[in-house]
Amino acid sequence: MISKKMENLVKGSSVIRAMFEEGKKMAAIYGPENVFDFSLGNPNVPAPKSVKESIVEILNEEDPVVLHGYMSNVGYDDVREIIAQSLNKRFKTDFSKENIIMTVGAAGGLNVVLKAILDPMDEVITFAPYFGEYNNYVSNFDGVLKAVVPNPPTFEPNYADFESKITSKTKAIIINNPNNPTGIIYKKEWIEKIAAILEKKQKEFSTSIYLISDEPYRELVYSNVEVPYLTKYYRNTIVGYSYSKSLSLPGERIGYLVLPSEIDSYADMFSACSVATRILGFVNAPSLQQKLIKKCIDEKTDIEAYNKNRVKLYNGLKNLGFECVEPQGAFYLFVKSPVEDDKEFVQAAKEFNILMVPASSFGCPGYVRIAYCVAYSTIERSLSAFEKLAKKYNLI
Amino acid sequence: MISKKMENLVKGSSVIRAMFEEGKKMAAIYGPENVFDFSLGNPNVPAPKSVKESIVEILNEEDPVVLHGYMSNVGYDDVREIIAQSLNKRFKTDFSKENIIMTVGAAGGLNVVLKAILDPMDEVITFAPYFGEYNNYVSNFDGVLKAVVPNPPTFEPNYADFESKITSKTKAIIINNPNNPTGIIYKKEWIEKIAAILEKKQKEFSTSIYLISDEPYRELVYSNVEVPYLTKYYRNTIVGYSYSKSLSLPGERIGYLVLPSEIDSYADMFSACSVATRILGFVNAPSLQQKLIKKCIDEKTDIEAYNKNRVKLYNGLKNLGFECVEPQGAFYLFVKSPVEDDKEFVQAAKEFNILMVPASSFGCPGYVRIAYCVAYSTIERSLSAFEKLAKKYNLI
Repeated sequence: MISKKMENLVKGSSVIRAMFEEGKKMAAIYGPENVFDFSLGNPNVPAPKSVKESIVEILNEEDPVVLHGYMSNVGYDDVREIIAQSLNKRFKTDFSKENIIMTVGAAGGLNVVLKAILDPMDEVITFAPYFGEYNNYVSNFDGVLKAVVPNPPTFEPNYADFESKITSKTKAIIINNPNNPTGIIYKKEWIEKIAAILEKKQKEFSTSIYLISDEPYRELVYSNVEVPYLTKYYRNTIVGYSYSKSLSLPGERIGYLVLPSEIDSYADMFSACSVATRILGFVNAPSLQQKLIKKCIDEKTDIEAYNKNRVKLYNGLKNLGFECVEPQGAFYLFVKSPVEDDKEFVQAAKEFNILMVPASSFGCPGYVRIAYCVAYSTIERSLSAFEKLAKKYNLI
Repeated sequence: MISKKMENLVKGSSVIRAMFEEGKKMAAIYGPENVFDFSLGNPNVPAPKSVKESIVEILNEEDPVVLHGYMSNVGYDDVREIIAQSLNKRFKTDFSKENIIMTVGAAGGLNVVLKAILDPMDEVITFAPYFGEYNNYVSNFDGVLKAVVPNPPTFEPNYADFESKITSKTKAIIINNPNNPTGIIYKKEWIEKIAAILEKKQKEFSTSIYLISDEPYRELVYSNVEVPYLTKYYRNTIVGYSYSKSLSLPGERIGYLVLPSEIDSYADMFSACSVATRILGFVNAPSLQQKLIKKCIDEKTDIEAYNKNRVKLYNGLKNLGFECVEPQGAFYLFVKSPVEDDKEFVQAAKEFNILMVPASSFGCPGYVRIAYCVAYSTIERSLSAFEKLAKKYNLI
């Protein structure tokens, strides 16, 4: 009785979410301390203390009718303005509230943009490996996702393949920076090359190609690597942001879109995203969380906690003979499967209560993703389990 | 550059939302006390005091990593279970958490169900006048909304027209009870007739037809009218609920779906709604608000405040010669336009700073909707403006 499209989705479902559910079951059987669940990007670093204090302040300061009420579908004016000013300060941009739309996380924001631009069979391009949900977001609006082939071990984009995949039907490109699942950062030089190709192709086809920068991991960067702000490199850029990771609020569903005034059809795009927010059933981003962002605009998560995990796990696995991509951002470690079939490797790891996600679900078979946003003690304890896994594959 | 589907939507946009934006502008010009904005169903009764107290308690009691973190896409187990038990107590049903899915309000819930069941060109039937957003929710998934003709002045369904509109492509019926925009309640006898027709048609076409009961106004009922719980009248019923009105939390986006175990393809439907929640970008209903519902499960809004408005406005407008439907529930008054063109009437009312919504946007031309969820003093002051309007149309 469910739709045909949904039948396949239910069968395939999300490998990541299935793992998450399995992890909960395994924890109940073996005890949570004996299960090493690296499946889901669910931050283990608590929200900054000021989050709690700010919510209490807001409850004391604001009229509940306004605080919990409807506002414009694009969000509160004051919240949007303070986000614009914060971006201007950080990135020397020139945004105002007219460039910001509050969203139900980055997932909500991406759906809003794609709803706004996609006609059936329109094409969206992304770079493998990529967040598997992009397939579903594009398919929601009958678009077609095309993935540029992965380019290990640096994962610098394959520009030739990228260029060859752009057609007159290409409506958007999605870049996830810092990248889930590899943890790499698309640096300035890479972005400049991508932008040049897009400019060329826009001219060739007389089309507008939007570059959607999906940035939930923007603040999770280790050492002094710069994450370019893409609106400064390519005029038709739209940014999707989320506070899920930067303030450890993934369950609260709060983020925003940036629509610069200089993008093609700015006014129509803004209206379309406003309407899409309403009719997709979001109506607006959760109101209390919006006001929280205003209070916590300068707050930061404890990046050092993730960095400690990163260093420990990366070095630990390298010492055990695993081939790993050194992560510069996000909280994922991308590891080459010692056998061709990443699903087989993931299955073998389960014998030692290690849960990882096969990268075939990120369009990059032969790798696995380890989400290291877990307690440091979990990383420590997991290393002996990884040692058994390494021995099983004769790595040590 | 926006999609073709969206072009038309941006042009048409929501009449209600456009009014809401216009009302804000008029309030800035004339002063809020001189504008009578009856456009939007935004509760003016504040959330119960315990909402604030409960949020503070939750912040003190819960680990922030869990409180603000991801959970299963369908929501927290404990929250879903307490909702199930509360329904069982009130309606003598037999639900457990396996029948509840937390949603981003009722709008989110309806989109989730429609995503789960609709293939392109599948049909959904509703009864005019109906909430105009149903058009968009159905169109989101390439379905076709068919409206049963309105039946004034009682607005009892036109059963013959309803029966004639059901085809082998009919996947769902949507009922909004208490009704927006009329304020009427679909009573037991009406529901029984609708259920009998659905049973007959399911047999005739060997299909499953889901009856979706959209119930954001369930708790807003005046005098002792009973709002039937539809799962008890028809096996294939799905309920969409929202706390937007019952706890005055519309901006927070919190509600749930009820999927009874006895519906056709229950397991697939539950999985499909879970997947739809994820891939439409909701991911999950806002986590803090979910926990709030657990604390406030037995809280009620101040129904007497709405009732006072209802009585004052209904009697006031009747005395001025307007033909009104007596509202039994929700917070809307449905008034017959003194001229055939309801849009012309709405335009004329604006001269007196009265904002109402033409019912042509609810599939029922010739009427207007007045949302009386405003301050009592606004109702009082508005009556002299309505008097001028009545004089303009020679009603008095």
